[in-house]
Amino acid sequence: MDDAHQLGPDAAAEIATFAYELGNLKREPRKGWRQALIANPESVADHTCRVAQLASIIAALEGGDPASAAHMAVWHDSQETRSGDNNKTSKPFMTVVDHETITAAQVERLPEAVRNALQRTVTEFETQATIEAVSAKDADKLECLFQALEYRAAGNTLMQEWIDDSYEALKTTTAIRIADAALVTSPLKWRQ
Amino acid sequence: MDDAHQLGPDAAAEIATFAYELGNLKREPRKGWRQALIANPESVADHTCRVAQLASIIAALEGGDPASAAHMAVWHDSQETRSGDNNKTSKPFMTVVDHETITAAQVERLPEAVRNALQRTVTEFETQATIEAVSAKDADKLECLFQALEYRAAGNTLMQEWIDDSYEALKTTTAIRIADAALVTSPLKWRQ
Amino acid sequence: MDDAHQLGPDAAAEIATFAYELGNLKREPRKGWRQALIANPESVADHTCRVAQLASIIAALEGGDPASAAHMAVWHDSQETRSGDNNKTSKPFMTVVDHETITAAQVERLPEAVRNALQRTVTEFETQATIEAVSAKDADKLECLFQALEYRAAGNTLMQEWIDDSYEALKTTTAIRIADAALVTSPLKWRQ
Amino acid sequence: MDDAHQLGPDAAAEIATFAYELGNLKREPRKGWRQALIANPESVADHTCRVAQLASIIAALEGGDPASAAHMAVWHDSQETRSGDNNKTSKPFMTVVDHETITAAQVERLPEAVRNALQRTVTEFETQATIEAVSAKDADKLECLFQALEYRAAGNTLMQEWIDDSYEALKTTTAIRIADAALVTSPLKWRQ
Amino acid sequence: MDDAHQLGPDAAAEIATFAYELGNLKREPRKGWRQALIANPESVADHTCRVAQLASIIAALEGGDPASAAHMAVWHDSQETRSGDNNKTSKPFMTVVDHETITAAQVERLPEAVRNALQRTVTEFETQATIEAVSAKDADKLECLFQALEYRAAGNTLMQEWIDDSYEALKTTTAIRIADAALVTSPLKWRQ
Amino acid sequence: MDDAHQLGPDAAAEIATFAYELGNLKREPRKGWRQALIANPESVADHTCRVAQLASIIAALEGGDPASAAHMAVWHDSQETRSGDNNKTSKPFMTVVDHETITAAQVERLPEAVRNALQRTVTEFETQATIEAVSAKDADKLECLFQALEYRAAGNTLMQEWIDDSYEALKTTTAIRIADAALVTSPLKWRQ
Repeated sequence: MDDAHQLGPDAAAEIATFAYELGNLKREPRKGWRQALIANPESVADHTCRVAQLASIIAALEGGDPASAAHMAVWHDSQETRSGDNNKTSKPFMTVVDHETITAAQVERLPEAVRNALQRTVTEFETQATIEAVSAKDADKLECLFQALEYRAAGNTLMQEWIDDSYEALKTTTAIRIADAALVTSPLKWRQ
Repeated sequence: MDDAHQLGPDAAAEIATFAYELGNLKREPRKGWRQALIANPESVADHTCRVAQLASIIAALEGGDPASAAHMAVWHDSQETRSGDNNKTSKPFMTVVDHETITAAQVERLPEAVRNALQRTVTEFETQATIEAVSAKDADKLECLFQALEYRAAGNTLMQEWIDDSYEALKTTTAIRIADAALVTSPLKWRQ
Repeated sequence: MDDAHQLGPDAAAEIATFAYELGNLKREPRKGWRQALIANPESVADHTCRVAQLASIIAALEGGDPASAAHMAVWHDSQETRSGDNNKTSKPFMTVVDHETITAAQVERLPEAVRNALQRTVTEFETQATIEAVSAKDADKLECLFQALEYRAAGNTLMQEWIDDSYEALKTTTAIRIADAALVTSPLKWRQ
Repeated sequence: MDDAHQLGPDAAAEIATFAYELGNLKREPRKGWRQALIANPESVADHTCRVAQLASIIAALEGGDPASAAHMAVWHDSQETRSGDNNKTSKPFMTVVDHETITAAQVERLPEAVRNALQRTVTEFETQATIEAVSAKDADKLECLFQALEYRAAGNTLMQEWIDDSYEALKTTTAIRIADAALVTSPLKWRQ
Repeated sequence: MDDAHQLGPDAAAEIATFAYELGNLKREPRKGWRQALIANPESVADHTCRVAQLASIIAALEGGDPASAAHMAVWHDSQETRSGDNNKTSKPFMTVVDHETITAAQVERLPEAVRNALQRTVTEFETQATIEAVSAKDADKLECLFQALEYRAAGNTLMQEWIDDSYEALKTTTAIRIADAALVTSPLKWRQ
Repeated sequence: MDDAHQLGPDAAAEIATFAYELGNLKREPRKGWRQALIANPESVADHTCRVAQLASIIAALEGGDPASAAHMAVWHDSQETRSGDNNKTSKPFMTVVDHETITAAQVERLPEAVRNALQRTVTEFETQATIEAVSAKDADKLECLFQALEYRAAGNTLMQEWIDDSYEALKTTTAIRIADAALVTSPLKWRQ
């Protein structure tokens, strides 16, 4: 990075402000699990981490670029610092702007290189036109399915809706086959 | 993906097994914070999420590829399902194999495309020879600094060691300037 | 209750369904506290309980009916099972219907006596035209102020905004004087 | 409120002191659930919130005054800041004064209007001579039954005792029919 | 153990029953900390563990038997499965039988060897006539002081009462000197 | 304790430092339970408390000294402040020094009386040559079995491995018979 492009204090402050905002994803419990009587459910950030890992794996198997898929996953719920984590129980009562609009507001004052990178990434994910974007979205659903199976193994009896809804939303053969395997694999198998 | 490369049930089961293993990162509390008297500290996955976001931002500003940096961040602590989260208090009493060896064991039975992608990513991160790898490592430290500042704002009085150690480990000008800004920015500024 | 008005099984099922919905208030953490870095903040139900108690006290002192004020407090956030707990950070990005509309949807299939009682109560609270309604709203703000002072005593350094905003929203002399006293009273004084 | 009756600073301090005491209900986990192996059970305040909501509903259906029933519910466990939440496992080993005595001690120094309102409310609840008092007590038991069913749906296998004991304590036809419905209604039905 | 003394199934069932009862100490949060606004305070068992460790250390330094002192500590709060954790805020409102009576009830149906050992241990602790009993009681207070200092370091501002009360209750020179040192030692010093 | 042996300020500071280190056992969640999808599992100190209680009971029944067995239990996991709580999933990837070496490092600067007492206790436990040491180790396994049964009663479906492994490790007839009884006794039986 040459001097002309070095980060000035104002731009650095904008990034710090945004980083603090992103910290809220670590403290925001996922709404669906609360409704399903899960005490102390995972955070949005917890979810995001494994979504990104699964996006990388699915993209690799689907012949896409793992890094690009993971990158979309990393930002795919970052709008929830603003909108919260809404679902079908809230939707009849509210109109929420689309993710690209929220991202635009979040990155408005960030340096151009960051602003462009994030907006491009969110737009690619929302458009769902590349194999990486499809892999990232499948990873989002597949992660939810794994978590539902884990909560079911931990005792919760209300997980079927989340298992079914996640499964039915899967698009790639890869993700469907991993989901099929997840249904018959013990969460403890890796320990053997 | 043509038929010849489609995921078979055995390979799918290996990936499901690995995905359950990765779930442990969502339940593993970060060790340093426990030692610093933080009740219910963030998980390794919580940390990983913002590391990946910061890696993307730092790489964009340093002229690197945001996706590649975020991708390394996504996998940089994935070995902790095996080794746990060790630090200077444990190191005199144990010898832990390097991250690449743990990753090799974790991905041993995964399909070649995944195995190669993950090993290459971990090796690039550990080698620290690209701007993206340096950005990802700086993101790791910078995220820790932000979290320490957040815990300090939440009341904890023991955070100076983590703030200093994180700050001193930063390599890029971008990360250092963000850290400087973080020290003087309120965690609530984004809400205004 | 004479036989003609006894609750039939369908009506009972509607009430049970609504009671399960209300259970979500016990698991919904208050949003503002999460943004202010409070780990494991109180639930909406936790908040509601002391709001109702304070509403009873304020109304008694303001010459109103304590039961009526407490009753409005009990239902004042019951819409959040649907809308979630939104605040100034979400408002630019969403349009939420008013509380009376949500209540109407929630009670639509409940027996007429319940439906009328709840809609009347919510409307009285939202209209703010009676001393009891004003007492209940002041109790809502005053409870938030007490909780902010408690979180501050527990260490959190970011509470000033909530203390100030709550204080400034108070309408009755009674609530203002209790708030003034709260600012200079130890949370442990009752134990002496 | 005319000037002669305005709250003086000493009286305001007494109310603030009492409001801090009431805050303990938000932090006191319900004892029975801990014994039944529930991790992180609901607080007394969590319980109180839905008791008051159910009291309002039952009273409306039983032809009583919803506000009065809810008001009794709001105060019915407020003595537990002093006595704790005792049950059959503690009773052979301790003698606890009655609720009215504890309330008398709690409100002793509060302004007369508050003192009278609270003592009258607690006495009405303890005497169980009005339909509102009976509705509030039934709401207490019914809420416990709902919570037991929710904990059972969340996995806990030890809930039968609480379900049975709560059910058997119900007095009104309304509450019994709601309980019958609760037993066969999914906690997720409201979401459809 | 010769055959004549082997544990029969009824006696084994009584011990299992008691072991499940003791499990409640792991889930019972310490009451004082809840009153002092500590979220998720330690359990009675958490406290007991360090009390026993400190009792061992104090007794060793006071010339007593470490094992005997630790053993008294291990059982010193075991009555709280029945009585709960009461303190000065509850005492005016309840009469609780003494610890020896509760222990007698708990061990009534256990084999004689266990019954005698536990009753002797509890009586020795309550009588406070041996250096080991005094060491165990000092360990109880000293542990509370350490925990108060840790909660203060974690941000809580209300700990002075617990620090002072614990300090003033200490009897042995050893415990007083450790307390003096605790006040000026960082909770992080052991990590250096 | 005569003057010549009184604890000096440096020695007191070393003990305070060690007591803060021991506090980490209260905050360290047990690793196996996290892997088995237990949210918020017990701490190492929670576990230690009931191990010590069971060690006391087993030793009494096996004709050993309850205090000595409990004392070994109190210190048997105290090394985990340094090594963490490692298990079969971590062992292929790390070499950890033995417990006696860690204890030696922990007590190195403590007064001789404490140092000797702790090292002797840890060595006796690790050597497993006395009935008290065997009782303490059986108590460690038996406690794990009780906790697994409790987590299973609370809903978790993955406990069989822990139940079996704990059972198979038991050495004394006493512990085996208590385990047999535990398998068929309700965790709620003590309440009747």
